[in-house]
Amino acid sequence: MMLPNVPGLDHVAIAVKDLEKAIAFYQDTYGLALAEIEEVKEQQVRTAIFGHGMGRIELICPTASDTGVARFLEKRGEGLHHICIEVDDIHASLARLKAQGAMLIDETPKMGAGGAQIAFVHPKGSHGVLTELRQGPSKIQASP
Amino acid sequence: MMLPNVPGLDHVAIAVKDLEKAIAFYQDTYGLALAEIEEVKEQQVRTAIFGHGMGRIELICPTASDTGVARFLEKRGEGLHHICIEVDDIHASLARLKAQGAMLIDETPKMGAGGAQIAFVHPKGSHGVLTELRQGPSKIQASP
Repeated sequence: MMLPNVPGLDHVAIAVKDLEKAIAFYQDTYGLALAEIEEVKEQQVRTAIFGHGMGRIELICPTASDTGVARFLEKRGEGLHHICIEVDDIHASLARLKAQGAMLIDETPKMGAGGAQIAFVHPKGSHGVLTELRQGPSKIQASP
Repeated sequence: MMLPNVPGLDHVAIAVKDLEKAIAFYQDTYGLALAEIEEVKEQQVRTAIFGHGMGRIELICPTASDTGVARFLEKRGEGLHHICIEVDDIHASLARLKAQGAMLIDETPKMGAGGAQIAFVHPKGSHGVLTELRQGPSKIQASP
């Protein structure tokens, strides 16, 4: 059974160069529990997720050199990459951003993991933070 | 009553130039609920916290120009500033970091908000991420 999410931080993503090395660091040094490792082929990244539910930590590592995450690492090195915010109504949030003239990466939501709708907002549209908006499937199904 | 925290993401902090403007953005555009606004005098910042428990979003805004957050904003603009990880044993985590030769900002824990012990790890010691380690008071009291 999937619990409905409240609006808030779904996860924070950290770009890393060597996924296995970073996983070992977060496990051994900080004592975090690894929940899953996954390859997201559409985004050409491998991810490692620590924790369950809201507020997870996600390590992301590119599997190809011509991707956004690979360019981020080349330019800035390892570090905080984006946050993902669970929202109640992703269409309403995108409409509000458009009304503000915010720079969007995705004008309309696309399908993300687990049947969620997701859309990325450019840092210039969201106080310097690359932001993934997410509306979980429970909320989508609950819509009229 | 304070619930004991599990190891994981306590909060992610975003440096902003205008706290009120950023609060309005996160409230109005993403529908997040503001939990509290606080002035942390020791760190010369004002903070706004969204959410409760683990995985909160914290906006931080400097109240003086000669602080780390003010320099971050001047150099890089608004954006993701640090993460705070709740750990089981902050002394053990710091000892492991030292053994790795990691660069620490705080060699020993200091007192943080709500009676927690906190210590900052330099991005160079933690995969490019300025990291605040936190051991909540419930865990400190539970130690032998």
